[in-house]
Amino acid sequence: MSEPHATLAEEAAKLDAADELRAKRAEFVLDDIDDIDDIADTVYLDGNSLGALPAAVPARLADVVGREWGRLRIRSWEESGWWTAPERIGDRIGRLVGAAPGQVVVGDSTSVNVFKAVVGAVRIAQARAAAGGEEPRDGARAAAGEDPRGEEPRDGTRGGSPDASRGGTRDEILVDESTFPTDGYIAESAARMTGCTLRPVPAPDIAAAVGPRTAVALVNHVDYRTGRLHDLPGTTAAVHAAGALVVWDLCHSAGALPVGLDAHGVDLAVGCTYKYLNGGPGSPAYLYVAREHQPRFDSPLPGWNSHADPFGMAPAYAPADGARRGRVGTPDILSMLALEAALEVWDGVSPDAVRAKSLALTDFFLRCVEAYVPAGRVESVTPAAHHERGSQVALRCADAGEVMAELIRRGVVGDFRRPDVLRFGFTPLYTGFADVERAARVLAAVLAEAPGEAA
Amino acid sequence: MSEPHATLAEEAAKLDAADELRAKRAEFVLDDIDDIDDIADTVYLDGNSLGALPAAVPARLADVVGREWGRLRIRSWEESGWWTAPERIGDRIGRLVGAAPGQVVVGDSTSVNVFKAVVGAVRIAQARAAAGGEEPRDGARAAAGEDPRGEEPRDGTRGGSPDASRGGTRDEILVDESTFPTDGYIAESAARMTGCTLRPVPAPDIAAAVGPRTAVALVNHVDYRTGRLHDLPGTTAAVHAAGALVVWDLCHSAGALPVGLDAHGVDLAVGCTYKYLNGGPGSPAYLYVAREHQPRFDSPLPGWNSHADPFGMAPAYAPADGARRGRVGTPDILSMLALEAALEVWDGVSPDAVRAKSLALTDFFLRCVEAYVPAGRVESVTPAAHHERGSQVALRCADAGEVMAELIRRGVVGDFRRPDVLRFGFTPLYTGFADVERAARVLAAVLAEAPGEAA
Repeated sequence: MSEPHATLAEEAAKLDAADELRAKRAEFVLDDIDDIDDIADTVYLDGNSLGALPAAVPARLADVVGREWGRLRIRSWEESGWWTAPERIGDRIGRLVGAAPGQVVVGDSTSVNVFKAVVGAVRIAQARAAAGGEEPRDGARAAAGEDPRGEEPRDGTRGGSPDASRGGTRDEILVDESTFPTDGYIAESAARMTGCTLRPVPAPDIAAAVGPRTAVALVNHVDYRTGRLHDLPGTTAAVHAAGALVVWDLCHSAGALPVGLDAHGVDLAVGCTYKYLNGGPGSPAYLYVAREHQPRFDSPLPGWNSHADPFGMAPAYAPADGARRGRVGTPDILSMLALEAALEVWDGVSPDAVRAKSLALTDFFLRCVEAYVPAGRVESVTPAAHHERGSQVALRCADAGEVMAELIRRGVVGDFRRPDVLRFGFTPLYTGFADVERAARVLAAVLAEAPGEAA
Repeated sequence: MSEPHATLAEEAAKLDAADELRAKRAEFVLDDIDDIDDIADTVYLDGNSLGALPAAVPARLADVVGREWGRLRIRSWEESGWWTAPERIGDRIGRLVGAAPGQVVVGDSTSVNVFKAVVGAVRIAQARAAAGGEEPRDGARAAAGEDPRGEEPRDGTRGGSPDASRGGTRDEILVDESTFPTDGYIAESAARMTGCTLRPVPAPDIAAAVGPRTAVALVNHVDYRTGRLHDLPGTTAAVHAAGALVVWDLCHSAGALPVGLDAHGVDLAVGCTYKYLNGGPGSPAYLYVAREHQPRFDSPLPGWNSHADPFGMAPAYAPADGARRGRVGTPDILSMLALEAALEVWDGVSPDAVRAKSLALTDFFLRCVEAYVPAGRVESVTPAAHHERGSQVALRCADAGEVMAELIRRGVVGDFRRPDVLRFGFTPLYTGFADVERAARVLAAVLAEAPGEAA
């Protein structure tokens, strides 16, 4: 225990006082739940699983239900802006992930969007290959500005047969080996249904593994278990250099750190909205298709909402232009407009400020754990280097399931990931440094009382 | 004008007084919207597009948002029953469509469920063919009890090569030619991704068109445009006799008439919940997979929610048993629990009583139209025979778009379907006979004032 409690508690108070995002906390419902049970003063470090309720949501949703549905009914599709909500809300999310307007559409679950994105990307890669090879992505490449193979020939190959990317077969999908499971399961289905093979590769090795047969790499920006932040600019550039496309899963990064989809020339991306974006349980996910790919985005789920003239009810499918091509069926309005209200908390917030506070929170948590927790009882599996860290800290710990249950009983809510990980998410808009200090203090107390064993 | 207004208005009052479902109307929000504009006493005949708001929904949804999400947060996945909602609500819908518990799961849009159902059905048909032919569906066949080819050989063939259904190729998908567009678009994608061909056939002809290469027929129970009710028992039996599977789209029948999925041996079915089930705009759809098919249901969208052990986070996919196999990603809780509250209005309601009132409403509307509307100005495209009629009346009419706009201005809300159809939906739980009489009266007035031309 290198630093005494009083010192760290004082430091937390000072950090909170200096926190430029501190006022945002008041825009969330963070009430005690002690009239439901006897837990008071919950420290909620599970916003990377389900974000807290933004205070604006209940009144907005009541209006959507009572007036827009209840009294205007069918007229609301036009008069209340329901029909255009998926693109309108998509643009709001776009701002947070570095996408210019017109490239993000909200709807469906993350899993369904992974399917659209991976199949869509395979088709683009294969169409490009059939047309004679990679079409250079000049704008994107220039914006990324850090392709380590910038001096290599424009045919974009790295090893393997140069012919493969000049019209050869693109029949391999790479997937981040430690991906959140649904991405892997859906990628496997996408591979099966497009005649591709699926090859799991550790995310940091994807840049080296991508080859002339690779159509698509599907990678998580932040690992859901370890909190490791993967190299989006570098991996994207390497995948492009091999003539393939990349799909990024932003579930654990959007709203926690800047993503820079346009700046780094990302091809497609998906993400959920119920973690750092606080959209509510199971709120609709989103799909980003870079503008340059939109004309060739060929969705495997061409529902009527993605038709160029949806109310023409034509028997033949003709896709809409732009982000709307990523829609499928009728949008789920109640959840979608709750999400829209939830996103208002981001007004005036800069992703850079969020990132700075996020790193300060995780740094401080690691210091408090180091100071308070008996040596050897936990081991961080989250990288220490800032450029490799998302917005969570994952601690390997013996009896992690029991430890987390006891933490929750004492009002510190994180979650447990099998077999042995305590996961703590730090949501910069409503988590303060005093919360962090208390969480570490309670963790130390639980571990000191438990019989335990070295991690 | 065969009957005077006063007579029909009196008859409407008597029919309303005798209506056993009359009390249900009080369970819906049917307020005037005259503090929004100056329309009073709206007659809402668009519940076949967006059902009216059940009065129980606002308070329930406020509790879901404020307490379950806002104060219990992540704990609600277990403590508030969020995790099991898709199957629990599925069973509620099951009761309305004649499915025993454990076969219906709620989630995703209708379009996404069409994709799951059609691909899943193709795979079952192909696996069966590869295993040497149709496995007889004795229970289902017996329950349907009206297979017109019951005397034919058990190999189930009708024309073509008998070998085809004894292990031959099953590579054709039949689709109802006048289907709601999304079904056709999605079926085309399903065909493309499973190596099948798609053949559009008028729904009444599917029984005759199904052949030894047919894997699946996708049919709408009620035509969205004409309101024609298709022959579910007979078509299902004919498709089975040919060794194929049938997927029924129940969007325009569930909640309006008895469906009898189990009784008629239907294989798979999908439907939305925002029409006659009043789940709210874009509320989650559902998927029925008959119990006998569940072990072989091989979803093209195997998201983590359908895994046998979802929290094991295993890299290899292993499907859950039962209805849960039809899930994909994290369920959309706000919309789903609004739907659950909406379904409470069905407590104690018998689908047979709903059907009887529905037919009485459409009969009465047709009589009122006949009595009031100048001859030749409209023509019903909805079948007169009860066994061919759903719960709407579609009238072909010159200048239908303008006529519907004027009807809406005068407080009679139906909808317009290009190029020339006025569509009126009759929702037995909250539509009364006086509404029907008034709608026909206003329609007649609008048509009498408009220059118009013969239909």
